[in-house]
Amino acid sequence: MRQYKLDEKDRQKLDALYLDLKEKSKTFLGYPTNANLDNQILSPFLDLAINNVGDPYAKSNYAVNTSDLECEVLDFFASLLKIPKDAYWGYVTNGGTESNLYGLYLGREKYPSGILYYSEETHYSVHKVGKLLNLETVVIKSLPNGEMDYEDFKQKLVKERPAILNINVGTTMKGAISNIDTIHAILKEKNVKDFYIHADEALFGLMLPFMEGAPQVNFEKSIDSIAISGHKFLGAPIPCGIVLCKKSAVDPIRRQIEYIGSHDATISGSRDGLSVLILWMAIKKYGREGISELVNYCMKTTDYALQKMQEIPWNSWKNPFSNIVVIDRPNDALIKKWQLATEGKIAHLVIMPHIHRDVIDNFAFELKQSK
Amino acid sequence: MRQYKLDEKDRQKLDALYLDLKEKSKTFLGYPTNANLDNQILSPFLDLAINNVGDPYAKSNYAVNTSDLECEVLDFFASLLKIPKDAYWGYVTNGGTESNLYGLYLGREKYPSGILYYSEETHYSVHKVGKLLNLETVVIKSLPNGEMDYEDFKQKLVKERPAILNINVGTTMKGAISNIDTIHAILKEKNVKDFYIHADEALFGLMLPFMEGAPQVNFEKSIDSIAISGHKFLGAPIPCGIVLCKKSAVDPIRRQIEYIGSHDATISGSRDGLSVLILWMAIKKYGREGISELVNYCMKTTDYALQKMQEIPWNSWKNPFSNIVVIDRPNDALIKKWQLATEGKIAHLVIMPHIHRDVIDNFAFELKQSK
Repeated sequence: MRQYKLDEKDRQKLDALYLDLKEKSKTFLGYPTNANLDNQILSPFLDLAINNVGDPYAKSNYAVNTSDLECEVLDFFASLLKIPKDAYWGYVTNGGTESNLYGLYLGREKYPSGILYYSEETHYSVHKVGKLLNLETVVIKSLPNGEMDYEDFKQKLVKERPAILNINVGTTMKGAISNIDTIHAILKEKNVKDFYIHADEALFGLMLPFMEGAPQVNFEKSIDSIAISGHKFLGAPIPCGIVLCKKSAVDPIRRQIEYIGSHDATISGSRDGLSVLILWMAIKKYGREGISELVNYCMKTTDYALQKMQEIPWNSWKNPFSNIVVIDRPNDALIKKWQLATEGKIAHLVIMPHIHRDVIDNFAFELKQSK
Repeated sequence: MRQYKLDEKDRQKLDALYLDLKEKSKTFLGYPTNANLDNQILSPFLDLAINNVGDPYAKSNYAVNTSDLECEVLDFFASLLKIPKDAYWGYVTNGGTESNLYGLYLGREKYPSGILYYSEETHYSVHKVGKLLNLETVVIKSLPNGEMDYEDFKQKLVKERPAILNINVGTTMKGAISNIDTIHAILKEKNVKDFYIHADEALFGLMLPFMEGAPQVNFEKSIDSIAISGHKFLGAPIPCGIVLCKKSAVDPIRRQIEYIGSHDATISGSRDGLSVLILWMAIKKYGREGISELVNYCMKTTDYALQKMQEIPWNSWKNPFSNIVVIDRPNDALIKKWQLATEGKIAHLVIMPHIHRDVIDNFAFELKQSK
């Protein structure tokens, strides 16, 4: 058979794309993705047909997998989220949407007649998941800081039906953290005993455990499943995440699949084992101490960003324990260049580990010029 | 901030894993994944926070993406599947499950009261998708060669309800191709006018267009959506695939998402742009001519494998236009070593581009020894 090679024109196209994306990464200030990546050690794995098919904890006939390291990644998150060693199950997903889909799917399987509740400032994936799962949905108002409007929740909570709740531990736009104790109190007050709580902790799930005094939303708080993104705080060139849940909730959907010589309780089936390597490496590289340092660094830089906004002055604020600075919407050219997410009259800066003070200085300078 | 590095022990663990997976790739004979990969050119992209968030055809605020190349990949598949340039929409997915979920989701949105039909030898993801989508499901028997039992379909097809059909263009285990004309005839005979057909062409979708005389299941055949895997025939270190559908079917679920500055009609939302580079590179490298040569190579090697099995002799057969050799189940040690998928008393060999004659010779030798 002939040896096929990329021709020169296409090769140049790839090179140009790389340089373009590299350049754009310098002004990447608006999304919760750590762009500080160092994965070259892993390049040989690009030439292996890796597939972590099925359950990471079960052996499969498909031997070209990284499932053992996947279990180490899951164990790391599980210990962070305070769920006992033998009480959980989970897997590395393709990102927040799959994690949320999985968690809420378990909720629906537990309570087929349940109503899905989420607040209006919830990530758009949850709306989509509700549709996919064919769930009756009630949208709760949000408070100005982005948190769920608990009064509205109390009003709208249907007493006679099981509740499937998505709660945000860090809303996408404003980084607001739901008060899980208040939510539990409302469920109790209205005597709703059948409930399932999924916590979407996309970005904050890896940050809060390292912040003194921060609310901790983990399995000690009667949560049924938790989603945390992998490409967000740790960073990855591929969207990925984890979902963790109580083992007992998974058993009803687990299915022995002879074809893969294993059982499957995942959504994807064939699953990305390269992301697993990237997450495993980041966890090993930083360790708890390193992640803690990264979190501190981000929080200090967030304070610096707020201060720079106030110096301009440019209207800005942030929620407690959040690295998201909400600002008045800049002009379109700045939104485009700095890749800012917007919502009506606001935009936000997300201060991730790759955002150093000089980046904020440059942005603040351009923002001031634009006044 | 400190510079964090992987310590020596973990570094060695990765090296050992690489060597182990490389070794296991030599006896990778049982799954439809091309292990002939050559992606080192792409390693720099491992250090970019790529995310093809939302619709590949729409611009997003998230600029670190490979969406332009994604559109080229989709256009390549679309022209292969004979759907006019402006009549389709699609995206690169995380693999067959997401592609099947997407296609059948569109079916359910079109016909909320529809029944999902699929045959018993259908890939396990379709069962899962039916559950996720909360669809009433009817499972059709399979013929001994793996095809749908058309008589059983005729019997079970409910006249009064819309039909959402998953048809297999290449069943997972036996590589059987559904006869789309027969299925259309049955729908017509039973006067079922409201139907949606999703074709799961995971492996064969990239092969049949290059085989003379092979049935072609494309958009000229009243198909509504088609799923083809990317990591299968082309090969990739990350499971991936495409889903293509008629543009008109997508509009009802399309949603403007301000947060990403784009609309979203995908399932994943945040999406893998690294797989896109891998698929784009493979398509450019091989071109139609090269893929055609690969297909011929696989089909010739498949004939060789059949011949070797008959020489032993070991019970074996294959469907027409299939590179899957169904064999009597070998012992467990061989199943494990050669990573064979099994089903009851049978197993299969999938003759992908990385399977050369010497691999088959070695397997046949060990199989003979095991008698």
